[in-house]
Amino acid sequence: MESQILTTPPNFAPATSEFDANAWMHVQLQRTEQALSAWVGVNAPANLGDAMRYAVLDGGKRLRPLLVLAAAQSVQGLPEAAIRAACAVELIHAYSLVHDDMPCMDNDVLRRGKPTVHVQFGESQALLGGDALQALAFELLTPSELEVPASVQAKLCRILAQAAGAQGMAGGQAIDLASVGKTLTEQELRHMHSLKTGALLEASVAMGVACATVPAPVQQALARYATALGIAFQVVDDVLDVVADAATLGKTPGKDAANEKPTFVSLMGLDAARSYANDLLEQALAALHDSGLQDVRALSALAHLVVSRSH
Amino acid sequence: MESQILTTPPNFAPATSEFDANAWMHVQLQRTEQALSAWVGVNAPANLGDAMRYAVLDGGKRLRPLLVLAAAQSVQGLPEAAIRAACAVELIHAYSLVHDDMPCMDNDVLRRGKPTVHVQFGESQALLGGDALQALAFELLTPSELEVPASVQAKLCRILAQAAGAQGMAGGQAIDLASVGKTLTEQELRHMHSLKTGALLEASVAMGVACATVPAPVQQALARYATALGIAFQVVDDVLDVVADAATLGKTPGKDAANEKPTFVSLMGLDAARSYANDLLEQALAALHDSGLQDVRALSALAHLVVSRSH
Repeated sequence: MESQILTTPPNFAPATSEFDANAWMHVQLQRTEQALSAWVGVNAPANLGDAMRYAVLDGGKRLRPLLVLAAAQSVQGLPEAAIRAACAVELIHAYSLVHDDMPCMDNDVLRRGKPTVHVQFGESQALLGGDALQALAFELLTPSELEVPASVQAKLCRILAQAAGAQGMAGGQAIDLASVGKTLTEQELRHMHSLKTGALLEASVAMGVACATVPAPVQQALARYATALGIAFQVVDDVLDVVADAATLGKTPGKDAANEKPTFVSLMGLDAARSYANDLLEQALAALHDSGLQDVRALSALAHLVVSRSH
Repeated sequence: MESQILTTPPNFAPATSEFDANAWMHVQLQRTEQALSAWVGVNAPANLGDAMRYAVLDGGKRLRPLLVLAAAQSVQGLPEAAIRAACAVELIHAYSLVHDDMPCMDNDVLRRGKPTVHVQFGESQALLGGDALQALAFELLTPSELEVPASVQAKLCRILAQAAGAQGMAGGQAIDLASVGKTLTEQELRHMHSLKTGALLEASVAMGVACATVPAPVQQALARYATALGIAFQVVDDVLDVVADAATLGKTPGKDAANEKPTFVSLMGLDAARSYANDLLEQALAALHDSGLQDVRALSALAHLVVSRSH
């Protein structure tokens, strides 16, 4: 079945006549920003709350929340569970950026065009603020059982914890750290990214799906979509790191090359990396088709966005 | 009801003839160490797994796991849920120590008589390892629903996330950081400790209780026990920081005074602090009596341990 998809990728241009992807995204981004603003850093001790809000609000593409909401919509998941999951996964992403930017890690001073959290608030607040954001992610997933059924809460926490931890995002970052100055094989590079960025992108889709009760084959198809999208995201990131400037990117470009970090571009060359990103888009769209779900237009639009983005 | 307890504290010496507190503790500690060893840092990328295991294994009093297990025993909670909760709360405690010891926080080089994690493994591994331990805590709480019912999983995650976050432990640490060099009132000091250390100790008892379905008045009585024990723990910590030496304490003593951090001893004096710890012990024991539970002997023994400990 997998090989059939790979050899005969169907054509899934977004059905713009029926579905306005920009309008959908606008509405979902608004919901997400409002929810994050209502939930993050509220009632936290002053400096800590400020650092948490600075790290999360008014910035970021919100790709992970959009994936959660699109996946939840495709399976008609519970809206309250979906918006909580959308915010929770974004908090994990945001805390990882805060910690990753710190002097003992990447020592980055610019993020989304603004000073990084430790530059703005000091290292201790960046450390604590990141820690508090991770805890808040799980707090958002566990409201009273009147708001979200316990079985959904447990599933969401399970998916997110696995994706964030040593066998997910944190593990990928550890491999990334250990790989500086080394020549990774393509397989090793893939493994590192499948943990460092892939795990959380895949979790986003899985959490959206977990907002409903869905047959295993549908889950599996959407998981294939998420895997392809996760790799595509990283390939495009590597391409942009080479071709974009700081103003477009909102962060320091060329950083990976300067740090001697291996990338898809350094391994395959720029043209092959671009072409690979398009192949992955087709795989993602084929998986959506395979799911048999009626309404995958938002998921489809997000896959296109990931590959065509300029920052 | 609260004032009645305070004015007529009953005498609850541990019933050593019927219950061997040391034997109970020995068995529970063994269970905890075995479980932690089986769960922590396994299948993590090499350096990260080593840092995680170093941070958690072969060290620590395991007070929080013992509180979970004692509370679970008092309400006849599910054993699988209890051992997972016991380990999860210890992972949150352990990660907080790793991050707290880092140069940008307390800059401590000695912990439990060993080099701290960032000294042993470098700052980036300490940061990542701590992050991964927090994620692992929530992963342990969310196994398959065949092992622990979803409703218990959700409750455990809810309690732990709230206790670990900005309105719990992380918030208390932020207040602590902001209070260096300031003269706190007793009320401010209490508030700081109620978050920084109290929240997780209270969560330990609450998580043990959440392993069973328990009437609200019983929950409330055990919550009062936990609150008194949490304050007592900090008062005794402050006393030991003044009177103990590094060999007994396993960390640098006199550090709080050197950092001009306010303590119960600096506020009330040494004798009054010691006497206050004993009052709190009596409050904790009275709350246990109040719970009406049959078997509170382990909880009683832990309260005595907290007040009489030498490190």
